[in-house]
Amino acid sequence: MIEDLSNRYTSKAYDKTKRVSAEDLATIEEVLRLSPSSINSQPWKFIVIKSDEAKQRFSNTFNKKYQFNQPHATNASEIILFANKIHYNKEDFKKRLDASMAAGRMNQKGYDNMLTKAFGFAEMVADENGNNSHWTKAQSYIALGNVLHTLARLNIDSTPMEGVDADEIKKEFAKELGDDYECTFALAIGYHNGEKDYNRKLPKARMAKEDVIIEL
Amino acid sequence: MIEDLSNRYTSKAYDKTKRVSAEDLATIEEVLRLSPSSINSQPWKFIVIKSDEAKQRFSNTFNKKYQFNQPHATNASEIILFANKIHYNKEDFKKRLDASMAAGRMNQKGYDNMLTKAFGFAEMVADENGNNSHWTKAQSYIALGNVLHTLARLNIDSTPMEGVDADEIKKEFAKELGDDYECTFALAIGYHNGEKDYNRKLPKARMAKEDVIIEL
Repeated sequence: MIEDLSNRYTSKAYDKTKRVSAEDLATIEEVLRLSPSSINSQPWKFIVIKSDEAKQRFSNTFNKKYQFNQPHATNASEIILFANKIHYNKEDFKKRLDASMAAGRMNQKGYDNMLTKAFGFAEMVADENGNNSHWTKAQSYIALGNVLHTLARLNIDSTPMEGVDADEIKKEFAKELGDDYECTFALAIGYHNGEKDYNRKLPKARMAKEDVIIEL
Repeated sequence: MIEDLSNRYTSKAYDKTKRVSAEDLATIEEVLRLSPSSINSQPWKFIVIKSDEAKQRFSNTFNKKYQFNQPHATNASEIILFANKIHYNKEDFKKRLDASMAAGRMNQKGYDNMLTKAFGFAEMVADENGNNSHWTKAQSYIALGNVLHTLARLNIDSTPMEGVDADEIKKEFAKELGDDYECTFALAIGYHNGEKDYNRKLPKARMAKEDVIIEL
């Protein structure tokens, strides 16, 4: 496991000719779907960009800034847009609980209990306008951590990108995102370009154990 | 992999007599340390609560609220406090870059470049007082997603808890946290109590694929 994770790194250049297999992509999507989240809120949507047309649309969102990430839009095998709900409200949570009821996970009493008590976590972190996007975004970083581990296991290269233009994505993918979702980061996946990916050969740089782990 | 992740769940009761092995705990700590983060900022600290004394200290932080999580404090094998920097500043990032220089990852030009350009990501998300805790906290959720995947692989049960009293933790663990760190969530790990862990037997509840994945 440590070997998997030590070998993973942020790829800086992709080989356009290599594609993630359909089987691996199905695994990746299922891992995203299964990701844990606070109160099992799942306040997210994952837009998987596969086609040349969609890649071009994503590439266009780099016209104003973060051009250093633009090549990934068309050279990576896929790009996953991580979108989170901006105002995660009771209606959203009800939809989620309906799924739990359908799965036989809870009875009406449990449903009511979750709706009144557990939902408090989403309310507590909302501002006066019901905006709890910091919280929903944090949940989507759990999915990111989960899938980065997955990619390390599958030996697929990746590039997490906060360097994306959220405003341009909002315009370009308005239809797919829907009104109340934002996408502030994306993940490129694929296989590195051996010559151009300077980051691959560099040693991993992490703080020393004693700087980040305290045992009590 | 899907089997690992389908079997993981949030444990609701721990068997006090079962301990995570030293080997597994070392793996978990190394996985946390290796976690990726934006601009490789690593704006975190992980406090691993192992001893009975430290467990009692953690248990005391539940005196005011979230008592439903209090039993985990003393019954779980370990509890990991995830702490993130509140004002992640240039000095913090310099320390990180020093580690990169030491690892032979960059030269002075790269160092200067990271400090001026990459650090912009941390500055951009800060408020007028330099508080960028929403961002540093989101990074620590990557570490959470990474370690939850790890625990699933190791067959170790776990309970992520946003239901912790950040103010009380700040007081009780002031010395270990240091001035500018907050802990707003923790992770209990160990082995479930077969009789009391009602959540273990319940089916997993996730939104359907078509509700969360859009392929383009």
